[in-house]
Amino acid sequence: MDTIYLDNAATTQPLPMIQQMLEEYIQTEWYNPSARYVPATRAAQKMDEARKQIADLFGYGYQVLFTASGTEADNTVIFRGAQKRKSMHFVTDRAEHPAVYEAMNKLAAGGYDVTFVPTDSRGQVDPQTVADAVREDTVLVSIMHVNNETGAVNDIAAMAQMVKAKNRATLFHADGVQAYGRVFADDTQNIDYYTVSAHKIHALKGVGAVLYKKGLPLKPYIYGGGQEGGLRSGTENTFGIFCFAQAAAYFREHQDEIAANIRRTKEAFLQEISHRSDIHVITPKNGAPHLLCLRIDDVRGEVLLHALEAEGIYISTGSACSSKKGVSRTAKSLGFSQKEAEGIVRISFSCLNTPQQGSVAAKKMLEKIDQLNIFIRK
Amino acid sequence: MDTIYLDNAATTQPLPMIQQMLEEYIQTEWYNPSARYVPATRAAQKMDEARKQIADLFGYGYQVLFTASGTEADNTVIFRGAQKRKSMHFVTDRAEHPAVYEAMNKLAAGGYDVTFVPTDSRGQVDPQTVADAVREDTVLVSIMHVNNETGAVNDIAAMAQMVKAKNRATLFHADGVQAYGRVFADDTQNIDYYTVSAHKIHALKGVGAVLYKKGLPLKPYIYGGGQEGGLRSGTENTFGIFCFAQAAAYFREHQDEIAANIRRTKEAFLQEISHRSDIHVITPKNGAPHLLCLRIDDVRGEVLLHALEAEGIYISTGSACSSKKGVSRTAKSLGFSQKEAEGIVRISFSCLNTPQQGSVAAKKMLEKIDQLNIFIRK
Repeated sequence: MDTIYLDNAATTQPLPMIQQMLEEYIQTEWYNPSARYVPATRAAQKMDEARKQIADLFGYGYQVLFTASGTEADNTVIFRGAQKRKSMHFVTDRAEHPAVYEAMNKLAAGGYDVTFVPTDSRGQVDPQTVADAVREDTVLVSIMHVNNETGAVNDIAAMAQMVKAKNRATLFHADGVQAYGRVFADDTQNIDYYTVSAHKIHALKGVGAVLYKKGLPLKPYIYGGGQEGGLRSGTENTFGIFCFAQAAAYFREHQDEIAANIRRTKEAFLQEISHRSDIHVITPKNGAPHLLCLRIDDVRGEVLLHALEAEGIYISTGSACSSKKGVSRTAKSLGFSQKEAEGIVRISFSCLNTPQQGSVAAKKMLEKIDQLNIFIRK
Repeated sequence: MDTIYLDNAATTQPLPMIQQMLEEYIQTEWYNPSARYVPATRAAQKMDEARKQIADLFGYGYQVLFTASGTEADNTVIFRGAQKRKSMHFVTDRAEHPAVYEAMNKLAAGGYDVTFVPTDSRGQVDPQTVADAVREDTVLVSIMHVNNETGAVNDIAAMAQMVKAKNRATLFHADGVQAYGRVFADDTQNIDYYTVSAHKIHALKGVGAVLYKKGLPLKPYIYGGGQEGGLRSGTENTFGIFCFAQAAAYFREHQDEIAANIRRTKEAFLQEISHRSDIHVITPKNGAPHLLCLRIDDVRGEVLLHALEAEGIYISTGSACSSKKGVSRTAKSLGFSQKEAEGIVRISFSCLNTPQQGSVAAKKMLEKIDQLNIFIRK
């Protein structure tokens, strides 16, 4: 059975080029970049080239701190990226990925003041609402670039600009894990920290990064031998980093082609379901091209997931990071009832999908929904 | 030029089998282990098998928390592995790896009471000294299993037993990064936490682990989607983990053979230098088989390192983690003068070296020392 993988927001299949990269790595590139002989310093040099390749896919003028995941990158910014003061206020929204949301909850539990602004019913955050929440003691605003469940795109350029207009000293962070390489900010000038993850763009799991502007407050989260300029000790995941850089370079080079392909695949999917009044598209029209969040009447997302799985089609009911917790917090925060939230599925595309796959998967989905409906109405 | 890599304490060359593992991974094993369809749950299952394989190389009855490095593992135990109380006392030694030493310094800076016990002149810690340092409010003792610079082996089994005899409530941690797979504890019964790293046993960089006994206090260091039983959020480095498990299984299967080969290589090296009165072996006779720490009269380690590099032989002057900081803290803590400390080099072997390489490298080293001496005495 040919499989159709449509859970690319959870993770993506590594690019085949990684296979060849490993061959080279095991031969000549595996040295410890902190050692002092030439093959080791060459590895360190390749790390620095990787930083540039990874930063360049987002915007200019960023330093790169490597982490082990997007989550660790978010945690690093939130816990270590704002100057410590007696009174500290943070702003985020209710539909953030747990990597930001739970870190903010941890700050709140530690006595810091955190404002969670609401989103609209599609997961989008209003820039004005964010700016209004900023106070004199607001040290950090953290708003995700693309919502990982609904695909809503936040205008982080405008938002960051408005935040700075309200309080020049407030730092702006965007979790860019679902956007990086697929959705771009109009302007990165006021974005202080941007966090990304390798395995969402067809590199390997185990590498994330904080992109940050030089001179910003950022303190170590892991202490030891002083790697990463003292910001994150521990021998670096060099192979993962080299793969991440290659994937970033690949995305940069083929940016338009990748975007067009993903858009066509999503359109092929949408076309098949457009006549159905029992399927509601939650993803905004101007949402991320690779994400499609649907709410289906009378069918539980989880049941549909497993029905499609039997056909070799893989989708999800929300983010993999909250898949074991029942209905997602995000779905609830959008204002859906428990029953409505249970009817939500997420379909997510990548450059490895074809429009034909989009169309086949949609048809299969309708077939399954109809079968499940007959069963329900009996 | 054939190279001879003798800096295996810094990192090791990945085993060739990893190449084939990647092929399989890119085909069928790359799914997100938190997703709910079968290929994803299979990845989660393989993660759990990996835990068992990794724990079994050390001892029985351990749970495994994956991290991104030995350093992160050490930090997790030190910052999150002891019940928080008003008065907390920690015990460690002066020759620890920075992953423990700097984390302990951070605790001390935060107002906690930390005792740094001395070592002997070869880096070994006396169990009685450790036990004597334990008080009623001592929550954690952290003593490395094998010193990463001198190769001294600490009797962590006896030490842990004596610590518990003094205070039953005190938890015992050993940084096992330099020992794991090559030096074994007589008895693991009283060792509560043990930290390891994948790239020291020929797997990839970017994976470490905390081995811990069930029910021990261990709190999250990274917050988010709740991976690793809530202890460490972030999508897991599944490929790195699978490779680590394979390497651990390989080491377990070939344990005696690997140990014998490393020992023979070290002996071959030692034989060549045994007649030299200007070379002093710091590593104790019962030290780790793969480590050889030497102090050479009148020759700077760094100069020797580069002289040997020109011949394709790679050694180090201390740990890679402190290689950029000049003379190592450990060397100083052993009681050597600045000049003596500058004469220290570390030679470290692995199962990929041959006794012949050991002998060739030693001869070349003598040649270089003699050349440098002529130059100095001129």
